[in-house]
Amino acid sequence: MSKVEYIDDVNTWRAGFEFFCPIKVRFGETDMFGHLNNANAFVYFEEARVEFFKHIGLGEEWLYNEKVSNVVANIQCDYLRQVYFDEKLRVYVKVHRIGGASFDLHYMVLNEDNEISLTGKNTVVQMDRETGRSLPLSDEIKSVLAEYQK
Amino acid sequence: MSKVEYIDDVNTWRAGFEFFCPIKVRFGETDMFGHLNNANAFVYFEEARVEFFKHIGLGEEWLYNEKVSNVVANIQCDYLRQVYFDEKLRVYVKVHRIGGASFDLHYMVLNEDNEISLTGKNTVVQMDRETGRSLPLSDEIKSVLAEYQK
Amino acid sequence: MSKVEYIDDVNTWRAGFEFFCPIKVRFGETDMFGHLNNANAFVYFEEARVEFFKHIGLGEEWLYNEKVSNVVANIQCDYLRQVYFDEKLRVYVKVHRIGGASFDLHYMVLNEDNEISLTGKNTVVQMDRETGRSLPLSDEIKSVLAEYQK
Amino acid sequence: MSKVEYIDDVNTWRAGFEFFCPIKVRFGETDMFGHLNNANAFVYFEEARVEFFKHIGLGEEWLYNEKVSNVVANIQCDYLRQVYFDEKLRVYVKVHRIGGASFDLHYMVLNEDNEISLTGKNTVVQMDRETGRSLPLSDEIKSVLAEYQK
Repeated sequence: MSKVEYIDDVNTWRAGFEFFCPIKVRFGETDMFGHLNNANAFVYFEEARVEFFKHIGLGEEWLYNEKVSNVVANIQCDYLRQVYFDEKLRVYVKVHRIGGASFDLHYMVLNEDNEISLTGKNTVVQMDRETGRSLPLSDEIKSVLAEYQK
Repeated sequence: MSKVEYIDDVNTWRAGFEFFCPIKVRFGETDMFGHLNNANAFVYFEEARVEFFKHIGLGEEWLYNEKVSNVVANIQCDYLRQVYFDEKLRVYVKVHRIGGASFDLHYMVLNEDNEISLTGKNTVVQMDRETGRSLPLSDEIKSVLAEYQK
Repeated sequence: MSKVEYIDDVNTWRAGFEFFCPIKVRFGETDMFGHLNNANAFVYFEEARVEFFKHIGLGEEWLYNEKVSNVVANIQCDYLRQVYFDEKLRVYVKVHRIGGASFDLHYMVLNEDNEISLTGKNTVVQMDRETGRSLPLSDEIKSVLAEYQK
Repeated sequence: MSKVEYIDDVNTWRAGFEFFCPIKVRFGETDMFGHLNNANAFVYFEEARVEFFKHIGLGEEWLYNEKVSNVVANIQCDYLRQVYFDEKLRVYVKVHRIGGASFDLHYMVLNEDNEISLTGKNTVVQMDRETGRSLPLSDEIKSVLAEYQK
């Protein structure tokens, strides 16, 4: 686990997660190597991120708003264990950093044996959909995000 | 081939195709059974359909129009041969029927040995995006479609 | 509903479904037209089909078997209503026909208002993975399938 | 561009790319926000990576080999510009680092105006498929990879 550069101490890092989204690996998400295709990890991260936004009351704010949106500025996945068809995963999300118009999320995917299969990090930027420019986060949003920053 | 209900005589049917879109099978489009996942046939059909609309001058009309759109009312694929990673396919499209506000397309996918790997049929409906109702095809559009009806 | 050729009387047809798989529409399964991309209906059908096979005790038989497999010979979807991000769907499956080495499944997708959003039909063929040829269904498998034929 | 941590000087970094794979953005790869869904960037990276392996003569070695495989240990994408339906992209790949049993690839995606839309980095590990353990790279493979290390 020492090689994942955004994880200092794995036990401390792991203990900071609270919110998760359950996801079962679909047949069509495997590839001819017999395991989960790497690109689908990002489908899982998105699903968990969207559910997290809804959970903290920002779903309407970011998913259905004509004026404001959120955009993935970067995202990374580290594949620690092979993931196979029909595994029942829990995709955890927490807030790592809160900036002016952006914030960082961390992801942890546990398998049924509570082993870490995947980890990830991601910067999200709040955007003004009309101008296409970043939009500073309100104090209200910052304080909501701060509750999940651990 | 006799079992595909929309094909009477395969040679006549095949001879009617002219337009095609080249598609190479991606690694991530396979599944753990080692071949193309069945759902991705419809990704190929869509890609060919979209290119066909652009080819006959209806791309702007249907793909970027705020008021008018086209919607897939139904679509079917028949899997005649296994399709594998890295195959170079040609996805052919032709018009089979032109109705009042809808039309039917047929699809034929050939492999590098000119064998038919997949066939398909599909009804497309022209929609008014504001009302969500079907919109009759203009005579101009009908005559453009008729050129590819064989 | 009269236009879907495999449905005679919709109430009778609908009453025959029992098994279903719950599926929530993911953000990434939409497209720039703002609704579910048509190809993803087949991802949902596959998910429900696989869960159905597991439910009737044929998961091991067909999904993890080196010698025997099942293959989609054809599949069709009829799109009756627009499907949007975050809808909670129920994807029902039933057996329509049992043949020598193949069988037909029907699909019905209900939205949260119990309206039919999508319907589908599909022929599955049991295959010998070594020879690549169809393999007659055993009497045991036929009788399991017959319990869901309505 | 200063915020992408694996790029020191963008002009130097950019000049090191030679191999690329052309990719057109498909309709179904967009999402309801109207642009390329972020997960599909990794589909493009995989397509380019696979073509790169074939280009340098390692396709047979890694894609069809029962005993040896390559696995994505981690992968990251930075989204610098919005990517839209029908854009014709060039997905460049180069080797950044060659280790004992692994190597790092960098990706650069240019749009039709030669602007950088996406960048990425990725660690690939050579695996023994039977033991599931990493397998040291041969001198021959290292020297082939070194030709694209810039």
